Amino acid sequence: MTNSTAQDIAKAAKVAFEESQLTSSDERIKALHEIKNALELNKAEILRANEEDLVAAKQEVDAGRMSESLLKRLDLNKGDKWDSMLQGVLDLDDELELYRVSCPIGVLLVIFEARPEVVVNIASLAIKSGNAAILKGGKESNRTASLLSKAISAGLAKTALPSTYVQTIQTRAEVSSLLELDQYIDLVIPRGSNSLVRNIQNSTRIPVMGHADGLCSVYLDEHADLEKSVRIAVDSKTDYPSACNSAETLILHDRVVRSIWPSVANALLAANVKLLCDPKSLEALKESTPHSKFQTHVFPSEPSSYTTEHLDLTISVVVVPSLSAAIQWINSHSSHHTDSIVTESQETASAFCRGVDSAGTFVNASTRFADGFRYGFGTEVGISTGRIHARGPVGLEGLVIYKYMLRSKAQSGHVVGEFGTGKKQYKHNKISATTVPF
Amino acid sequence: MTNSTAQDIAKAAKVAFEESQLTSSDERIKALHEIKNALELNKAEILRANEEDLVAAKQEVDAGRMSESLLKRLDLNKGDKWDSMLQGVLDLDDELELYRVSCPIGVLLVIFEARPEVVVNIASLAIKSGNAAILKGGKESNRTASLLSKAISAGLAKTALPSTYVQTIQTRAEVSSLLELDQYIDLVIPRGSNSLVRNIQNSTRIPVMGHADGLCSVYLDEHADLEKSVRIAVDSKTDYPSACNSAETLILHDRVVRSIWPSVANALLAANVKLLCDPKSLEALKESTPHSKFQTHVFPSEPSSYTTEHLDLTISVVVVPSLSAAIQWINSHSSHHTDSIVTESQETASAFCRGVDSAGTFVNASTRFADGFRYGFGTEVGISTGRIHARGPVGLEGLVIYKYMLRSKAQSGHVVGEFGTGKKQYKHNKISATTVPF
Repeated sequence: MTNSTAQDIAKAAKVAFEESQLTSSDERIKALHEIKNALELNKAEILRANEEDLVAAKQEVDAGRMSESLLKRLDLNKGDKWDSMLQGVLDLDDELELYRVSCPIGVLLVIFEARPEVVVNIASLAIKSGNAAILKGGKESNRTASLLSKAISAGLAKTALPSTYVQTIQTRAEVSSLLELDQYIDLVIPRGSNSLVRNIQNSTRIPVMGHADGLCSVYLDEHADLEKSVRIAVDSKTDYPSACNSAETLILHDRVVRSIWPSVANALLAANVKLLCDPKSLEALKESTPHSKFQTHVFPSEPSSYTTEHLDLTISVVVVPSLSAAIQWINSHSSHHTDSIVTESQETASAFCRGVDSAGTFVNASTRFADGFRYGFGTEVGISTGRIHARGPVGLEGLVIYKYMLRSKAQSGHVVGEFGTGKKQYKHNKISATTVPF
Repeated sequence: MTNSTAQDIAKAAKVAFEESQLTSSDERIKALHEIKNALELNKAEILRANEEDLVAAKQEVDAGRMSESLLKRLDLNKGDKWDSMLQGVLDLDDELELYRVSCPIGVLLVIFEARPEVVVNIASLAIKSGNAAILKGGKESNRTASLLSKAISAGLAKTALPSTYVQTIQTRAEVSSLLELDQYIDLVIPRGSNSLVRNIQNSTRIPVMGHADGLCSVYLDEHADLEKSVRIAVDSKTDYPSACNSAETLILHDRVVRSIWPSVANALLAANVKLLCDPKSLEALKESTPHSKFQTHVFPSEPSSYTTEHLDLTISVVVVPSLSAAIQWINSHSSHHTDSIVTESQETASAFCRGVDSAGTFVNASTRFADGFRYGFGTEVGISTGRIHARGPVGLEGLVIYKYMLRSKAQSGHVVGEFGTGKKQYKHNKISATTVPF
C-alpha cells in the first residue's frame, strides 16, 4: 500500500466520523442489529474459514514458525467464544469485591517557558494529587524560577515527603535525556510555544498532555446579533492577545458580510487590530465607509494566515457560504482548542456545538473563557487539545488515574476455574461504599 | 547533563513517588502550607529577581531575539498574578452555562493478531461509542476476519452510517503508513504480541492504548493460607496460560519457603507446570520429598526468567525477605498489569494494594479475574497498562472523551473583559441537568 492509499483510508475514516456525529443513536443501534444478523446468517461459512485458518496455523506451529499460544487464540469455535462474541455478554460473585480507586499517575515532567508562576502552580498540583514532579523552566525566567524552587524545597524539607518529590532541572540537554526515560516518567506536560510542544511530541514515547497551537476562531452566523458580534469578536481578539485562547480567525457567513462585518471591522480597527482579509471580506470593507486605519491595518490574507497563531493584535478573516462550510473550515483549520459561534438560532448553535470537533464549543461567548480558573477548576495544569485522558482546561483530575482493587473474602479465595457454563456465574451487583475498606 | 544524571533524576522522582504513596494526606497539606509560607517569606527577593529577568528579556526583545508575547508572560507582578499563583483561587456567571459533554474520541486504528473475534468486538464497540474504526487483523486469521468484515459491511450498508465507518486493511505496510497519519487517526489500539505492541509504540506519535507485556505475579505472604495459596497459584498459572492475565512469577515470603511452598510446587508440578526457581526456592524443594516431575520440570532460574512473559506452563519463582521487598520486586519487574497477594492479614493486604503500582492489585484472588467481561464492563477493548486515560480492562468508556460547551443567554453575550478585580465575579454554581439543553 502506498502512503497515498493509507492517506485515503485514514481521511475517509475521519470524514465518516465527522459525518456520523449528526447520525441518530437509533441508527447506531440498527447498525449493531444488522451486523449481528449478517454474522448469524454467515456463521457456517465463517466457522469453516476459521477451520482453514486453524489448519494452516497448525502447520506453521509444527514447522516452528508460529507459537502454540497464537494458535490457541485463533479458534473461534472454542468454548462459548462465538456466542460471547455476538452478545458482548455481561458476565463478580458473593465475597468477591471489586473497587476502582483513584490514584496519582506517577512522575510528571513539566517543561515550560517564560511564565515563572508555573513552578508554583505545578508543584502545588503535584503535591495535592500525589504525583512526583520534575520541573524545567525556560532560561528567560531562570532567576525567578530558581528562587521559587528554593522556596518549594524549603517548604518540602519541613515535611515527611521525600526531598526529590519536586525536582528542578536547568538545561535543554537534560530535557532530551529525560524524554527517553519512559520507565520512570509517566506524563510530560509542556507549557510554552508551538515549537517547544511539537519538539517534545516528536521526541518521546511518554504521553504528552498539552497543546501545540491555540488556533481559536469566532464564527459570525447568518443569525448573528450585531452587538454580540462586535463584543465577542473584540474581546476574543484583544483581551489578552498572547494567550492560547485568543481568537486568530474570524469566520463570516456570506449573509453578514455586508450587514454585520463592517461594524465588527471598525470596532477591531479602533482597538488597533490588524485584519488579514480574504477577497470577499476585503471587498466589503472597501465598499463601506473606510475606517481611518484602513490603509495601515487592512491587508489581503494568504493561505498561511489561517494556520498561523498570531499571538498579537492580528486576525485572519474568511467568508463561508453556510453553517456546514463553517464547521468544515474549523475542523480542518483549527487546532481543536476552542471555537465560538455568534447566533440567535438555537438549532444552528446546537449543530455547531456537535459538529465542531474542538475541546470547547461556545455560543455567544468569548473564546477567552476557555480557562481552568474561569471554568472553576482551580489551578490549571494546562489546556489539552488531545483526545484522550483529558481535554480542554485541565485541573487536578487530569493528574489522576485509577487502579482496580479486587478482594476475596471467601473461605478458600477466588479462582477463575470455578466460573463458566454449568458452573458459577458472575453477579455484578453494584457495591455502595464511600471508602475502600482495605 | 549526561544521560546518567537524567537517569538519576528520573529514578529519584520514581522512588519519591513510590515512597510518597504511603505518606498521609495531612503531610501533603502541610507541604502546601509550608511552601506558601516560604514563598511569602521570600516575596521581595523573588519579585526582584523577576524584575531582572524582565530587564534582560526586554533587551532580547529589543534585539529581536525574543518575542513580545514571551516577555509579557514573564512578569510575575502583573495584575493579581502573584496572589492567584499563591491561592490557586477558584474563580461562571448568571446566564453563562458550562456543560461537559461526553463524546467519541474520533478515529480508532485497531491492530490485532490471531483472535478473529476482535473484528466484531471492536466494530460493535466503535459503533456503540460513536467512533469510526480502521481494523487490521493478522494474516493468520485472514480468512475468518475477512468474512466477519464482510458481514459487518453488509450490516452497515442497511443503515445511514457512512460505509467507511468501519474499514478493514490487510497488510503490515498499510499499518506503517497509517501510523504516520496523526492528523486523521486519534487512537491506536494494538491487541497482540509484545513485539507487535512495542513496534507500534515506537513508530507513532498517535496515542497507543494497550499493553506490551502481561507480566503478572502472585505473592505468597508470610500470613498466607495454604489452601488459598495452592488454588490461586495454580489457577493464575494454568487456567489459560497464553492469556496476558496469567501469572508468570510466583513471589515467596522467606517464612513460607519451607511451609507453604512445597505444597504449592507439588500442585503446580501435578498440573504439568515447569518451575524456574531461585536458589532458595530450589533448595527447599530438594529438601522436601521431591515430586516425580522434579527432574523434568524444575530448573534454576536466570535473571531473564523474571522479565519473560512465558505464556505457557512455566512460572518463575523468587524468595523475598519482606512485604516491602515484594512490593519493590513487583514495581521493578512487573508490567504493571495485575498482581495478587495471598494473605490473611488485612494490614498487609492494604499496604500491598497501595504500594503495588499496577492496574490491578488483588487479594486472595486469581490474576485471571483481570478481564473486562469478568469486571462486568461488557465487551472489552483491551487491557491498558498505561497510566493515562484508561487503566486495566477497558470497556466502552475507554473509547469516550468529553468536550466543553459554553452558552451565554445574556442580552449581549459574554465577554471576559467584564470580569476581574472590581468588576464581575465568577459564580461557579453547579447546574443540574440530565441532558445538554442545546
